[in-house]
Amino acid sequence: MVVSHSKRKATQLPPPLVLVLLYASLIVAGTIGLKLPVATVAPIGWSDAIFTATSAVTVTGLAVLDTGRDFTIYGQIIICSMIQLGGLGLMTFAVLILSMLGLPIGFSNRIYLREDLNQTSATDLMALTKVIIRIVLLCELVGALVLSIVFIPDLGVAQGAWSAVFHSVSAFNNAGFSLYSDSLSQWAGNPLLNLTIILLFVIGGLGFTVIADVWQLRSWRKYSLHTKLMLFGTAILLVFSTLAFTLMEWNNPETLGGMNWGTKLVVSLFQAATPRTAGFNTVDMASLNDSTTLMFMILMVIGSGSTSTGGGIKVTTFIVLLLATIAFFKRQTAIDIFGRRLGADQIMKVLALAMVSLALIISSMFVMLVFHEGNFLDIAFETVSAFGTVGLSRGVTGDLDQIGRTIIMFIMFVGRVGPLTIGFVLATQKSKRISYPSGTVYLG
Amino acid sequence: MVVSHSKRKATQLPPPLVLVLLYASLIVAGTIGLKLPVATVAPIGWSDAIFTATSAVTVTGLAVLDTGRDFTIYGQIIICSMIQLGGLGLMTFAVLILSMLGLPIGFSNRIYLREDLNQTSATDLMALTKVIIRIVLLCELVGALVLSIVFIPDLGVAQGAWSAVFHSVSAFNNAGFSLYSDSLSQWAGNPLLNLTIILLFVIGGLGFTVIADVWQLRSWRKYSLHTKLMLFGTAILLVFSTLAFTLMEWNNPETLGGMNWGTKLVVSLFQAATPRTAGFNTVDMASLNDSTTLMFMILMVIGSGSTSTGGGIKVTTFIVLLLATIAFFKRQTAIDIFGRRLGADQIMKVLALAMVSLALIISSMFVMLVFHEGNFLDIAFETVSAFGTVGLSRGVTGDLDQIGRTIIMFIMFVGRVGPLTIGFVLATQKSKRISYPSGTVYLG
Ligand SMILES: [K+]
Ligand SMILES: [K+]
Repeated sequence: MVVSHSKRKATQLPPPLVLVLLYASLIVAGTIGLKLPVATVAPIGWSDAIFTATSAVTVTGLAVLDTGRDFTIYGQIIICSMIQLGGLGLMTFAVLILSMLGLPIGFSNRIYLREDLNQTSATDLMALTKVIIRIVLLCELVGALVLSIVFIPDLGVAQGAWSAVFHSVSAFNNAGFSLYSDSLSQWAGNPLLNLTIILLFVIGGLGFTVIADVWQLRSWRKYSLHTKLMLFGTAILLVFSTLAFTLMEWNNPETLGGMNWGTKLVVSLFQAATPRTAGFNTVDMASLNDSTTLMFMILMVIGSGSTSTGGGIKVTTFIVLLLATIAFFKRQTAIDIFGRRLGADQIMKVLALAMVSLALIISSMFVMLVFHEGNFLDIAFETVSAFGTVGLSRGVTGDLDQIGRTIIMFIMFVGRVGPLTIGFVLATQKSKRISYPSGTVYLG
Repeated sequence: MVVSHSKRKATQLPPPLVLVLLYASLIVAGTIGLKLPVATVAPIGWSDAIFTATSAVTVTGLAVLDTGRDFTIYGQIIICSMIQLGGLGLMTFAVLILSMLGLPIGFSNRIYLREDLNQTSATDLMALTKVIIRIVLLCELVGALVLSIVFIPDLGVAQGAWSAVFHSVSAFNNAGFSLYSDSLSQWAGNPLLNLTIILLFVIGGLGFTVIADVWQLRSWRKYSLHTKLMLFGTAILLVFSTLAFTLMEWNNPETLGGMNWGTKLVVSLFQAATPRTAGFNTVDMASLNDSTTLMFMILMVIGSGSTSTGGGIKVTTFIVLLLATIAFFKRQTAIDIFGRRLGADQIMKVLALAMVSLALIISSMFVMLVFHEGNFLDIAFETVSAFGTVGLSRGVTGDLDQIGRTIIMFIMFVGRVGPLTIGFVLATQKSKRISYPSGTVYLG
């Protein structure tokens, strides 16, 4: 009786709290793991350990240590595992929240989850997690095999194979961790590595529901509206930002300037894709033009897809914001897209999500500026990168003092847990209220 | 017959086009005026003349010349007149647009305007303009008299009286033009000047409808929802930003650091009020901390009131955005405030307005960064200042090359005409459409 009662209470913990506790526990475990003498080449401080663990679990990728040089193979395995658990936890939890919204979760003929989390049996959750794990491992395995073709000739069999596994996991989970201090800049011109890494993080960034749709249906016409918007939006964003990057950096001697045409194209595509929250880089972020840096910050805010391993306000949120604005000027009260209609309730959700994200980003930036000295643009970039769990840096991460590290860790955590918590709140039902007479406010 | 036909066509010009033509004509006239040899101490180029005219007509206040030193009294009178015409045109046009929205325009028992601009008689428009002119001149006259008390002892009767008139007009119209190269920094600690200037630009920034409400009704309970929100929001923003400014700049040796308590308070209040689009300054903008600079940019984007001489997305838009977000998390589909309800249609208007403004600000910033070299923060600040027609600068205005000047002029023009044009589009009626089945997009 007592056991059953406490069990019931446990399952009734608010899901956002479950998420926070899950991530906090993972970070604590990771910190302890990384503090073990066997994990590092030389002993590291608690501050280094907890920062690395937070960055790995939140799949951000900002690093105060050199992952390849300061950690032993055991330390690297711990980091890789934290990335994998953080990414899996994220996808599973996001799908759970969607199911609570009463939305179809992709596998249309196998509904694992009921509309209410309290009614979800452990069996359903296990089955769902199994499907997700299967998809994730398959993608990562294929990725690691292809990356081996690049890494083994360059680094030898053992180091090459491990590097392939590590970067495949890091890429699919949009973690941005690399074993090399200049990220993947050494292979900036290698088309096979670039395309593989891009494919991994773009697929990982599309989100479980989109992957499931594409996997099952194999026909554009049958895809859900969400899948269509994600595929369409991702393609448009990739094309647009590749073009913009090429144009703006073409003559920059520190980035594309000295490269040949082919390399310029490969680097541009990679850099255009990575800010929407992969976080790898093949050129030095601090060398980018200010205009490119601003574009990167915007892409970092947009982020990737729902139920994905990426962060940001999400591509669909961005599209709906754009469409809502256009619809308004066309004097429509709903958005018609791909033969489907999005009503005022969906638009209000987008507004709420965008406003909260914007408020979080601006307050984070504000706190960083108040408590940490440094160049405005570098700090703004670092903050947005942490909030969007992107992991790109203009070099601030290494210079952070204890206060700065604490703030960035907090922002990474909020950036990871926050949007999902908002998703949860959006998932709960509306309450009724007494109606006041209507009022008017002038806005123009 | 022919005359009547052409007359009918003229009155049917789209109002946004009328606004653009009106402002463009004023700028051309002002440019020619400022190019007259009598207007300047030494001959100036067309570029200087057109930039100054654009800044004055759009009541922005960014300056490439020293208004007090480079222009003669005649040149200063031309600038003052352009500010007055730009400000008056703005208020009149904004009220016109509100009347097209079918909204009460303040003077509840004297409706000068019909719901459709085409039905508005010239007599109605004249009557409205007369009321606005009467209010504006009264405020400016009182302001000039009080400012004389400060300026005449310091500058002598003639110069002091002219300075009082010029700064009163500039303040009420939120123009930010000053006859002194360091704006009003000489009088940073003078409470009478500070309070007068603040009162002038805050009242001018509340907007015609609010002034009319307060003038006529003299009781909080009778005020319209819009008036309540504007008064409430302005007060909250003033208190909050004064506190934040004091805290962040308290020990900055280049701003508050060397001042006594009283001066610190006066300067903080003035600086907290001026970014919401007055544009005067009593400390050097380039000496502010980066965190304060970020706060200023946010305040510049928020701006002042509808039907006022100020710019930005407007205080009410900002409040409704905040309330909509809060309402959403309280699971409400409408906003209840001061015993009135704002429905989904109003919230969608706010969303559209905020998105368009944000898009305009970011694209402006982007264009400036691509085409003009310089420090990121300084350029970002200058761009936001131009867009919000604020006029504060971290020193970029003087360094602008021809391209930079052209872009800033364009941004000032768009910042001035754009929001009103959006207001006009929002004022037009909705069309009906065939309804598609509803779709869903995941956002969290
Ligand atoms: K990342
Ligand atoms: K101004």
